[in-house]
Amino acid sequence: MDLFDKIASNRGPLGSHSHYAHGYFTFPKLEGEIKPRMIFRGKEVLTWSLNNYLGLANHPEVRKADVDGAAQYGMALPMGARIMSGNSNLHEQLESELADFVKKPECMLLNFGYQGVVSIIDAIVNRHDVIVYDAESHACIIDGVRLHAGKRFVYPHNDMEKLETQLQRATRMTNETGGGILVITEGVFGMSGNMGKLKDIVALKEKYQFRLFVDDAHGFGTMGATGAGTGEEQGAQDGIDLYFSTFAKSMASIGAFVAGPENVIEYLRYNMRSQIFAKSLPMPLVVGALKRLELLRTQPELKENLWTVVRALQSGLREKGFNIGTTESPVTPVFLNGEIPDATQITFDLRENHGIFCSIVVYPVVPKGVIMLRLIPTASHTLEDVRETITAFEAIAAKLDKGLYSKNQVSV
Amino acid sequence: MDLFDKIASNRGPLGSHSHYAHGYFTFPKLEGEIKPRMIFRGKEVLTWSLNNYLGLANHPEVRKADVDGAAQYGMALPMGARIMSGNSNLHEQLESELADFVKKPECMLLNFGYQGVVSIIDAIVNRHDVIVYDAESHACIIDGVRLHAGKRFVYPHNDMEKLETQLQRATRMTNETGGGILVITEGVFGMSGNMGKLKDIVALKEKYQFRLFVDDAHGFGTMGATGAGTGEEQGAQDGIDLYFSTFAKSMASIGAFVAGPENVIEYLRYNMRSQIFAKSLPMPLVVGALKRLELLRTQPELKENLWTVVRALQSGLREKGFNIGTTESPVTPVFLNGEIPDATQITFDLRENHGIFCSIVVYPVVPKGVIMLRLIPTASHTLEDVRETITAFEAIAAKLDKGLYSKNQVSV
Repeated sequence: MDLFDKIASNRGPLGSHSHYAHGYFTFPKLEGEIKPRMIFRGKEVLTWSLNNYLGLANHPEVRKADVDGAAQYGMALPMGARIMSGNSNLHEQLESELADFVKKPECMLLNFGYQGVVSIIDAIVNRHDVIVYDAESHACIIDGVRLHAGKRFVYPHNDMEKLETQLQRATRMTNETGGGILVITEGVFGMSGNMGKLKDIVALKEKYQFRLFVDDAHGFGTMGATGAGTGEEQGAQDGIDLYFSTFAKSMASIGAFVAGPENVIEYLRYNMRSQIFAKSLPMPLVVGALKRLELLRTQPELKENLWTVVRALQSGLREKGFNIGTTESPVTPVFLNGEIPDATQITFDLRENHGIFCSIVVYPVVPKGVIMLRLIPTASHTLEDVRETITAFEAIAAKLDKGLYSKNQVSV
Repeated sequence: MDLFDKIASNRGPLGSHSHYAHGYFTFPKLEGEIKPRMIFRGKEVLTWSLNNYLGLANHPEVRKADVDGAAQYGMALPMGARIMSGNSNLHEQLESELADFVKKPECMLLNFGYQGVVSIIDAIVNRHDVIVYDAESHACIIDGVRLHAGKRFVYPHNDMEKLETQLQRATRMTNETGGGILVITEGVFGMSGNMGKLKDIVALKEKYQFRLFVDDAHGFGTMGATGAGTGEEQGAQDGIDLYFSTFAKSMASIGAFVAGPENVIEYLRYNMRSQIFAKSLPMPLVVGALKRLELLRTQPELKENLWTVVRALQSGLREKGFNIGTTESPVTPVFLNGEIPDATQITFDLRENHGIFCSIVVYPVVPKGVIMLRLIPTASHTLEDVRETITAFEAIAAKLDKGLYSKNQVSV
């Protein structure tokens, strides 16, 4: 069969909606600077879709650092992979500052978070090793696990009893193969807002021999007393063997890092395929990350503002009867039961009649029959923004209760 | 066994050299602006290590565009994945201009080349399909193939007879499974400088039903009458079903694109995991790519200058008896037989005594027992740079012939 004929007849779970969704529900354009009020299709909307947790994206010092970095170095520098020709003192300085901040001996910058996670997993396990991972892990973790030639045991999201069962299986298995065990979870799960049970997992090290890799993309900068992440939040940072975060969320950039023991990070520098065979993080992004990290460390009021908004939004939604699940972080999902047409009606109503822009998340990111509207509060939002949003959601809920949303697909 | 104990005792093929190589042969720092003369360990060196083929990295208009993009948008914008909140008119404009330039109906921007290739392969095949690929394919292709749950048949580099054998096997296999066949090769192979035999492969479509995916990272901007790449060079662009290039080489940036039929690109937009689950290409990189593409199209003298330097360098090296293999592109390998200590002595001599900086490539990038010094000529180099380099290589060759390089590892 022709490969492309097959593609033409199977658009995939998200692609099957593109005929009505494209440009509105999918691939929307938010225009203007990154702040709560942006422009969508020519109208101002109050935006809850951007992982700009600390409001750094549009911070004057960040904007200046981004321009200065581009002016001094250009976007091309350095060229080549880090190992070949793409290294610099500033890359090493950023690594050193990140390691200090997350309290790990050593740190390695990554040219992009997604392929970084994939290659970390790929580099540290071989076919004799067993991976045990949380079922709701991000796609980049799943892709890393997919590259693994050995056994992988999944446990239901945050289910510590089942994790222990899998660790027992993995221990029996590795006793035979001579391999080791890698447990993978997240600090904050980006869809539910749940924290990974890092403290409980680390406690299992008393009974089982394994290493723990944590993707803290949503926790870095938002969780813990100093913002050093979910390990700090739970007093479990020392038990995390490899700590990863992207710069794509609270750091408002791209790139990522992984921190851990000196000899393991050294090993990763020489063995991560997506890093030794692809270009180094451009200098303006390194300079920009140094500035962002400085602000994250020295302006604790950014995280305080974030949490003031988070608490107001989450308690407000709960008071109005919305199901926001079990979030323990700024990530604020609003779960609705229904099919995709209901979700599109609600999202359309929110955007067009209430000026509220939030992302709609459907299968395969959430299970079939579940609609999730995801709100991401940031330090730049105000309590007035929260009130306006709660009021809009109240109106939506009333309309939903009365069955006033038609079952027709919105056509935009 | 403890996972990290295993790592401590196995540094990997490249890592096993880090004790003497780090900071000199691996992870060197080239300082200053990207041009032929840069600073290495405080001394000026003539650099042949950067894939800045057209000299765009430091072109005044590029440098200005990079600053203007950063000033107007900041590095954070847009936030989120393209499908969720990271789309913009400029992303679409760049896609449109790239599609026009490479003569394909549609184009999709990618947030990073490596993970882009991995996810393209992952998205377009399923377990019923068969992948047939060149043995010397880049690591990102190999990682994409590793994710494939169905059969994959490799053919020896550029061996058309063996490719045909594998196509016969693949055809029999897919006749049973009902799947399709994807052939993957490169436009220009980054190590040997060989072109993929695109025209020959396309001709095989008369006998076999398959789709062709070409990674033209090193060919885009350097090959073909207009710089549209190796497909144009060989008059085979129409037969390439999916054409990929990174911005990390002649475009002197990061990011990438894939171009092909409208419905396949549309499918990829909704089904590439590294794109739907990771952040969009930052706006300054989009603005910067638009400027680079404009210069690439409107200043053919850049490619002419490149090829003047390429021809002088390659013919000069050949005249002096160096084995530069079978390169048909600007990539200029110099193959030496020997072990790693020989290679380090020569590289050290070139850098310290002749002021010539080139990259040393060893196993596993090239086979054991082979040393490769790789020279990347650019439009910014001069014929005087070439003469200086040839003279240095002559001195090296004479010394090598006389057995004057010690067999001791260089300690730096």
